[in-house]
Amino acid sequence: MLARQNPQLNKNGELIHLLSTEGLSREILTHILDTASNFVSVSDREVKKVPLLRGKSVFNLFFENSTRTRTTFDIAAKRLSADVFTLDIGRSSTAKGETLLDTVANLSAMAADIFVVRHSESGAPYLIAQHVAPHVHVVNAGDGRHAHPTQGLLDMYTIRHYKKDFTNLSVAIVGDVLHSRVARSDIHALTTLGCPDLRVVGPQTLVPESFSALGARVVHNLEEGIRDADVIIMLRLQNERMSGALLPSSQEYFQNFGLTPQKLQLAKPDAIVMHPGPINRGVEIDSDVADGPHSVILSQVTFGIAVRMAVMSIVAGNEA
Amino acid sequence: MLARQNPQLNKNGELIHLLSTEGLSREILTHILDTASNFVSVSDREVKKVPLLRGKSVFNLFFENSTRTRTTFDIAAKRLSADVFTLDIGRSSTAKGETLLDTVANLSAMAADIFVVRHSESGAPYLIAQHVAPHVHVVNAGDGRHAHPTQGLLDMYTIRHYKKDFTNLSVAIVGDVLHSRVARSDIHALTTLGCPDLRVVGPQTLVPESFSALGARVVHNLEEGIRDADVIIMLRLQNERMSGALLPSSQEYFQNFGLTPQKLQLAKPDAIVMHPGPINRGVEIDSDVADGPHSVILSQVTFGIAVRMAVMSIVAGNEA
Amino acid sequence: MLARQNPQLNKNGELIHLLSTEGLSREILTHILDTASNFVSVSDREVKKVPLLRGKSVFNLFFENSTRTRTTFDIAAKRLSADVFTLDIGRSSTAKGETLLDTVANLSAMAADIFVVRHSESGAPYLIAQHVAPHVHVVNAGDGRHAHPTQGLLDMYTIRHYKKDFTNLSVAIVGDVLHSRVARSDIHALTTLGCPDLRVVGPQTLVPESFSALGARVVHNLEEGIRDADVIIMLRLQNERMSGALLPSSQEYFQNFGLTPQKLQLAKPDAIVMHPGPINRGVEIDSDVADGPHSVILSQVTFGIAVRMAVMSIVAGNEA
Repeated sequence: MLARQNPQLNKNGELIHLLSTEGLSREILTHILDTASNFVSVSDREVKKVPLLRGKSVFNLFFENSTRTRTTFDIAAKRLSADVFTLDIGRSSTAKGETLLDTVANLSAMAADIFVVRHSESGAPYLIAQHVAPHVHVVNAGDGRHAHPTQGLLDMYTIRHYKKDFTNLSVAIVGDVLHSRVARSDIHALTTLGCPDLRVVGPQTLVPESFSALGARVVHNLEEGIRDADVIIMLRLQNERMSGALLPSSQEYFQNFGLTPQKLQLAKPDAIVMHPGPINRGVEIDSDVADGPHSVILSQVTFGIAVRMAVMSIVAGNEA
Repeated sequence: MLARQNPQLNKNGELIHLLSTEGLSREILTHILDTASNFVSVSDREVKKVPLLRGKSVFNLFFENSTRTRTTFDIAAKRLSADVFTLDIGRSSTAKGETLLDTVANLSAMAADIFVVRHSESGAPYLIAQHVAPHVHVVNAGDGRHAHPTQGLLDMYTIRHYKKDFTNLSVAIVGDVLHSRVARSDIHALTTLGCPDLRVVGPQTLVPESFSALGARVVHNLEEGIRDADVIIMLRLQNERMSGALLPSSQEYFQNFGLTPQKLQLAKPDAIVMHPGPINRGVEIDSDVADGPHSVILSQVTFGIAVRMAVMSIVAGNEA
Repeated sequence: MLARQNPQLNKNGELIHLLSTEGLSREILTHILDTASNFVSVSDREVKKVPLLRGKSVFNLFFENSTRTRTTFDIAAKRLSADVFTLDIGRSSTAKGETLLDTVANLSAMAADIFVVRHSESGAPYLIAQHVAPHVHVVNAGDGRHAHPTQGLLDMYTIRHYKKDFTNLSVAIVGDVLHSRVARSDIHALTTLGCPDLRVVGPQTLVPESFSALGARVVHNLEEGIRDADVIIMLRLQNERMSGALLPSSQEYFQNFGLTPQKLQLAKPDAIVMHPGPINRGVEIDSDVADGPHSVILSQVTFGIAVRMAVMSIVAGNEA
């Protein structure tokens, strides 16, 4: 994809919207991670706030509810000294019959600087990015099954923090890959960053063979999937997105694909275990793993603030 | 109405509450518009914030839901550096049986500086203004069918911006005038500012003859109503406020009173088209008009922030 | 209770969480009240803000809805220059099956400094305080019937403001003592501060004899209960917490335990009347009392901001 065709980049190839990890170069991904590392000292509170977005207006446009992700963007924006406006879109003008693009045009006219968008429809943030005024930057906070790029980036930050280099890693993404925008964002980022051994692991119903086209090896057996892995990314079993036929029973799923201390011994001795949260204890992950020495789940949360600060400060600094 | 009888003014005739455009002199209206012009540079982001209300507490008391208007007040207050507290009153103490005036007295005691009030009952902001502590200023953000003075003022700002002077203008207000607090606020302001030719235009069910008593000419034909107009203010068809008998079908309404490019040719060549939003495309306005060269609808949104900054900074600066 | 066993105190005996007024020494209670007196000038707006918590993150975790209390903590935190994040927990990750402790661990990892917790289950703030990271301080904003310590402390502030000294006071707490976390917090604080004559007053169904074990005299007759009292704390009849058999009719309750001007004459001539709000006019208190010269109900609201500023600044200043 050429830079001028990628709606995420301006004509100089600089990031002006973050819509997906797909189509971003290794240089841009690395620039985001490097920038985030400067903010970790803010997010772990050695430094309290930085004035990079002072006076800027960040609009949280959550067409789909998410307290957790919304809060992390809210925190990231305020630690950059921005003003944050959270719109409960479900109850707003769209309920009066206004179109999505009219809502967006109106919010642009209120002199927004950044739209953080979560939407149940894949592609909605792209549509918005194509229609916003030039002074508005769009950050995708999750769209349908498509992408969740800040989660993907914070996963990359976490992996780099613990493993230093991507080019000799074995990474296993385990679970409900089919419904997971996190998995898609991770796969694109890991491939671009040079990960040589990437596996997507789960039952056939949740890990279709088609994922091999993205550069991952499809494995339907947990033991095989995590063997000698450096990094295991467990996914949430998204019961709320599944209809009856697809939905495995929790016991059965845990029996086959739940990560237990015993199974974890198949991975490298210094393997890290990640999860985007919220975790289902006893469904996809055993509590002894979630709370154990290999787990870096809470570090992901902390790094997520820094990564979102990095993304917002980078896009806001580039001109459309 | 004498100044000392007007609850919006202190004994020096200064604005301490904004409850209605009715009863405000041309001098006060002009002072608000002049003040707003200083803030346009803030609202269009050349200047980021001003410290006029630093440390002040603005309470958004929305007894009737409105994401759009609430957000514009929130933005305006934060660009004045105020702290903003939004109370979802429907779920609060009033649900426990507390009276409106007890709620207001309690919030006053929390050292509020400004109450921004939206209420489905006409007159509720007046009742509140009569009972707040002297340090609290009330700004009406829409009460029933009665008034929406900041919308009226931002309409005046928009007209003055594009037409410079009110004293030689033909202005048509078109649509559901009966249910519109915006229309009432516009009519009072336009009359006071010297507009010599003001028409209210719509079907008999939505534009009663009684509006002529306010100084507007009642017209039941769109073509006649907008002929040679300098300014056309389209109103939203408020389906949600109408019972069965009054409610026209959307197609029929659009046929007779929808503003299309063809009909717009009857107005002055440099006519501007306004709308308080959210618009119903294809009901009261054709998309080609809403998005066309005569439309200043998004400018209204931008100016609305500046006007609300002006109103809040003015009332907060005057003593009861 | 020894200091090292009290989860509210660090090993130096300093306050690190505020969970209850029970188990706090007279010195600590007095320190909070003294600190609050420094903030009254902020809460009544002579001084606008203080930078004590600049850059700190206060999380409002309201598992049980309360607009009033939430707003007072929001105001207090912002007047200390903190950033405030309000989580509507009912709609968040706990709805996705996440455990309370996982939610808390995640929020800790977002670098929270203070959790303000309201929960319908007695003891929930203790559970949270036991599991938060060392950098997080927990303030109980009401848990079940157990405790509402900031309300208790603002009541103490109000009493001290008007009566100067606790050691010669007669205090009557009147009404639905059984269901009242306010009553429990007041009783513990008054006892510790040396109040020699404390009465809990109400019908047998709402004031069990067991309260005498807390150091209060149980009285089932209003006239006897408030005779010669210096301070009368009226409680809200919490209809929403009562099942059918317990619930008195409003008229009958007012007849027997409603505070009227006539009955108030039995108290000391300079008695003050308090109420945590929201009041039920004509149920537990006559409007002529609520709005009369003995009422200090609105002063309680104002002092409540200062007391919450004091609590948050004190706990945030001490290390676990």
